[in-house]
Amino acid sequence: MADAAKTDGFYSNLSCGALGVSPGFPAAVDLAVEFGFGAVDPDVGYLAGQSPAEVEQLRARLAEQGVRWGNAGVPVNINADAATFATQLAGLEEFAARLAALGVDRAGTWIRPMSDSLTYRRNFARHVERIGLVDEILAAAGVRFGLEYVGPKTFWSTERYPFVHTLAETRELLAAIGSSNVGVILDTFHWFTSAESADDIRTLTADQIVAVDLNDAPTGRERDEQIDGQRLLPGASGVIDVAAFVAALRDIGYAGPIKVEPFNAELRSLPAHEAVARTAESLKAVL
Amino acid sequence: MADAAKTDGFYSNLSCGALGVSPGFPAAVDLAVEFGFGAVDPDVGYLAGQSPAEVEQLRARLAEQGVRWGNAGVPVNINADAATFATQLAGLEEFAARLAALGVDRAGTWIRPMSDSLTYRRNFARHVERIGLVDEILAAAGVRFGLEYVGPKTFWSTERYPFVHTLAETRELLAAIGSSNVGVILDTFHWFTSAESADDIRTLTADQIVAVDLNDAPTGRERDEQIDGQRLLPGASGVIDVAAFVAALRDIGYAGPIKVEPFNAELRSLPAHEAVARTAESLKAVL
Amino acid sequence: MADAAKTDGFYSNLSCGALGVSPGFPAAVDLAVEFGFGAVDPDVGYLAGQSPAEVEQLRARLAEQGVRWGNAGVPVNINADAATFATQLAGLEEFAARLAALGVDRAGTWIRPMSDSLTYRRNFARHVERIGLVDEILAAAGVRFGLEYVGPKTFWSTERYPFVHTLAETRELLAAIGSSNVGVILDTFHWFTSAESADDIRTLTADQIVAVDLNDAPTGRERDEQIDGQRLLPGASGVIDVAAFVAALRDIGYAGPIKVEPFNAELRSLPAHEAVARTAESLKAVL
Amino acid sequence: MADAAKTDGFYSNLSCGALGVSPGFPAAVDLAVEFGFGAVDPDVGYLAGQSPAEVEQLRARLAEQGVRWGNAGVPVNINADAATFATQLAGLEEFAARLAALGVDRAGTWIRPMSDSLTYRRNFARHVERIGLVDEILAAAGVRFGLEYVGPKTFWSTERYPFVHTLAETRELLAAIGSSNVGVILDTFHWFTSAESADDIRTLTADQIVAVDLNDAPTGRERDEQIDGQRLLPGASGVIDVAAFVAALRDIGYAGPIKVEPFNAELRSLPAHEAVARTAESLKAVL
Repeated sequence: MADAAKTDGFYSNLSCGALGVSPGFPAAVDLAVEFGFGAVDPDVGYLAGQSPAEVEQLRARLAEQGVRWGNAGVPVNINADAATFATQLAGLEEFAARLAALGVDRAGTWIRPMSDSLTYRRNFARHVERIGLVDEILAAAGVRFGLEYVGPKTFWSTERYPFVHTLAETRELLAAIGSSNVGVILDTFHWFTSAESADDIRTLTADQIVAVDLNDAPTGRERDEQIDGQRLLPGASGVIDVAAFVAALRDIGYAGPIKVEPFNAELRSLPAHEAVARTAESLKAVL
Repeated sequence: MADAAKTDGFYSNLSCGALGVSPGFPAAVDLAVEFGFGAVDPDVGYLAGQSPAEVEQLRARLAEQGVRWGNAGVPVNINADAATFATQLAGLEEFAARLAALGVDRAGTWIRPMSDSLTYRRNFARHVERIGLVDEILAAAGVRFGLEYVGPKTFWSTERYPFVHTLAETRELLAAIGSSNVGVILDTFHWFTSAESADDIRTLTADQIVAVDLNDAPTGRERDEQIDGQRLLPGASGVIDVAAFVAALRDIGYAGPIKVEPFNAELRSLPAHEAVARTAESLKAVL
Repeated sequence: MADAAKTDGFYSNLSCGALGVSPGFPAAVDLAVEFGFGAVDPDVGYLAGQSPAEVEQLRARLAEQGVRWGNAGVPVNINADAATFATQLAGLEEFAARLAALGVDRAGTWIRPMSDSLTYRRNFARHVERIGLVDEILAAAGVRFGLEYVGPKTFWSTERYPFVHTLAETRELLAAIGSSNVGVILDTFHWFTSAESADDIRTLTADQIVAVDLNDAPTGRERDEQIDGQRLLPGASGVIDVAAFVAALRDIGYAGPIKVEPFNAELRSLPAHEAVARTAESLKAVL
Repeated sequence: MADAAKTDGFYSNLSCGALGVSPGFPAAVDLAVEFGFGAVDPDVGYLAGQSPAEVEQLRARLAEQGVRWGNAGVPVNINADAATFATQLAGLEEFAARLAALGVDRAGTWIRPMSDSLTYRRNFARHVERIGLVDEILAAAGVRFGLEYVGPKTFWSTERYPFVHTLAETRELLAAIGSSNVGVILDTFHWFTSAESADDIRTLTADQIVAVDLNDAPTGRERDEQIDGQRLLPGASGVIDVAAFVAALRDIGYAGPIKVEPFNAELRSLPAHEAVARTAESLKAVL
């Protein structure tokens, strides 16, 4: 089986969670190796349950196969009530230390693009400081923090106050946070639904991108009718110009993980091996 | 002919422009008197073309009939390019002096609830300072400045960046401007489409309201499907609880003009006399 | 021994900590009773070490003497690094529950009026959200949160970026936080050094004030030369017009604790009984 | 007479106004030529009074001698009342067209670093939008707009509300304005009094700098005691490390005018020829 993608710069990243299949982490690692992925998303919960020796053995195997870590999720809900947020934030230092010990250097979360209770400005102030708090703790552990904006109008227009849902707004958020450790997680689906161009990607520096997702969108729907939870593997329909997006990443020298996150019912229903095979094939075609 | 509404506090206001009929200003004054309106919107352009004696005669007639001035529009486009805005702003001092000479003490504009080029924050910064500039000139002439927010989702969700479209956001804008001369223009149509309550009105002080519009909404459409340019006379359908809205105005002691602005094709097609008669009747029923 | 001050509205509050004397909490309660204070600041640490029965006995004695609780400090440093802030915030729910159990309904902190690392805007964003987090937890326990701004120019001008040091700025902060549970702690020393007037106090509603401090300032120094840690008992020099300040509080109907916080070396060197006697006398004269 | 400075990148710029001498514009041009300056600040008022033929003749002479235009001032007071600002802004399009016709491509103003009436946030909002309005008009004419921050504590600490007085804050202002046409005017005197480093300069790109001033500061005064109107020619005392500043400009590839603005009584008292000679000499030594 040929490599899905191993370039000098960015590298394909297998995230079974993003595919909607659950083979278990050891099997996910096997699949990453089998299909030549350049990286695999860490299952931090699973790894916490292993002995140091087992973890070391796993890391050795990944190193031998040239498989790096993708990115982790951040166990803090930016939108939680204050007491919940306080508890989650207080646990973050230990989580970040665990990432650092594993060698995971990227973690991320997404921005909920609307609110029924917070105006745009109030929500922005909340995000600036809460993300800043999370980031300061991650940065101290050497872990970069990525923020994914969510583009579909069918999402951001559903509550009283729309919020950040474009790259331009995400950059305002990054500027207000003012930390070089925070960056953006790009997803072609959001880039497409926000009507952005390859040149918009080129306004970023490589350092401002923490991770990348590639997806396509179903045909038969206008851009403003696309639904966040209904996507396709990259290149599947051609609705999204994934090639132009990838070319822009190449132009600015992005060096980091690229995965797919198709939220696709058909894919979810397949055996994990088949789902990963199709994913590897789609990534190989577009990278 | 019975009075449409002359209370100690607020008073009915005839705006032929808002009804979509154009009998000419002298005829509008006649209609206001005939149907017992408490106020009539000034036609500043028309009045500028009259001699001082003619204006004085008109004002004497209005005074004799107990008819006050409603509110004027502000001839400055808050969303214009810089050179246009500069020219319009430079002409505002003279316009404000004209209002002051006529005895008109209220003027207003509406807030465009979205933009394709300015993010929420950029647009907010623009509105704060441009409205502040307009307000400082109006305030120096003794003219209050009212801002009308626009509520329908079919409006604010149509461009890339939604903007101020609720009372809560309008209050943030007022707070950021920081001038007691600026207030809000309330419209039941926007209050309804923004899903606001009578208690939301009660969070305002009477001084924070510069003018009020009463309208109803057509049946057969969800709140989020209502269209800004398709409304009904207040009380026509009962979709909007105009009585609860008016009761809240009474509770906080609002004292100012109340008009209707139905953007209604049927009304527009009537002779002015008939359109005004129906308007007076509808206002009489709800006030 | 005559009452220092027991009015229908505000009431004198004994804070031995603010006087710089340390008789221990039981003795502080004795002194509050002896000198007729209307309230005493709780020593939350001490009380946490007492049995429920002892605490109940103390509360009964206070109730019998008509002595209420003043206000507590908040054990969260708004300016701390993220990990420290997270830990402190995570402990706040329990602390707030303890306050609620004791019947303490006010707690406060002060705003550091400058920073060497955060610009005004960055610091403002930090304060908005961090104070908001603290406030949400305190509010859930029924405890109001007061913020004290610090006025002396000899303080706010000593680092690269001055920060909130006036009532006007504190009100902007309150507006941005947007919670009716947060209010201001007024201190005549900061009011004086910020060159504010009694009318500035009158722009507040009683509900916006959580606690009040009265102090005077030494003679022989210009307003801009006054030093935060060198003050006098209220009325001692007449440099600060404490009477005008108190009259404004009366006008707006402030109902809450009033203490002195003179940061005065001479007072600190006295036996606690003598220091409290002088304090009671000074409060009696000005209230 | 040797060239003061003609490099591939930046170039020395003669501004008699900044030196405090008034030889008249034709004589200023003669002096620029005589002392080998790479640029001369345009006297837009003088040039407006000349015939097209005279202006053309002058431009031809400058071109022949390799002397470019420095930068013009902007005839709009960012801090003016609304009516004055409106009038000045309305005249800016014509002024900008005149600059464009002359070939002048840079204009600037300075930021008043404090206010007695506007809080930091209110003042920031004002600057964002007013500078944005000016910039949009200048940009349409192809003229870049430079903002000079003012660093001395003896200046920014003299009114109730300090304002932008550091490079970091100026960059926040630029980010909020969001126009690539606006940049910063750097002055070693403000860089020194704001305690900034050469590395702070290196955080800028060449495009973000519109113009540069070099000055030194008198000995015998602490950094915080330096006074804006009392400076020295660059290199005169060595208090300011002008060489490190210039090295940083070279590192980032700044290509634009560099002048001195010493606000120095002794220099002002000299004949223009002598003042310019000393200026040329000082620039030659540091560039």
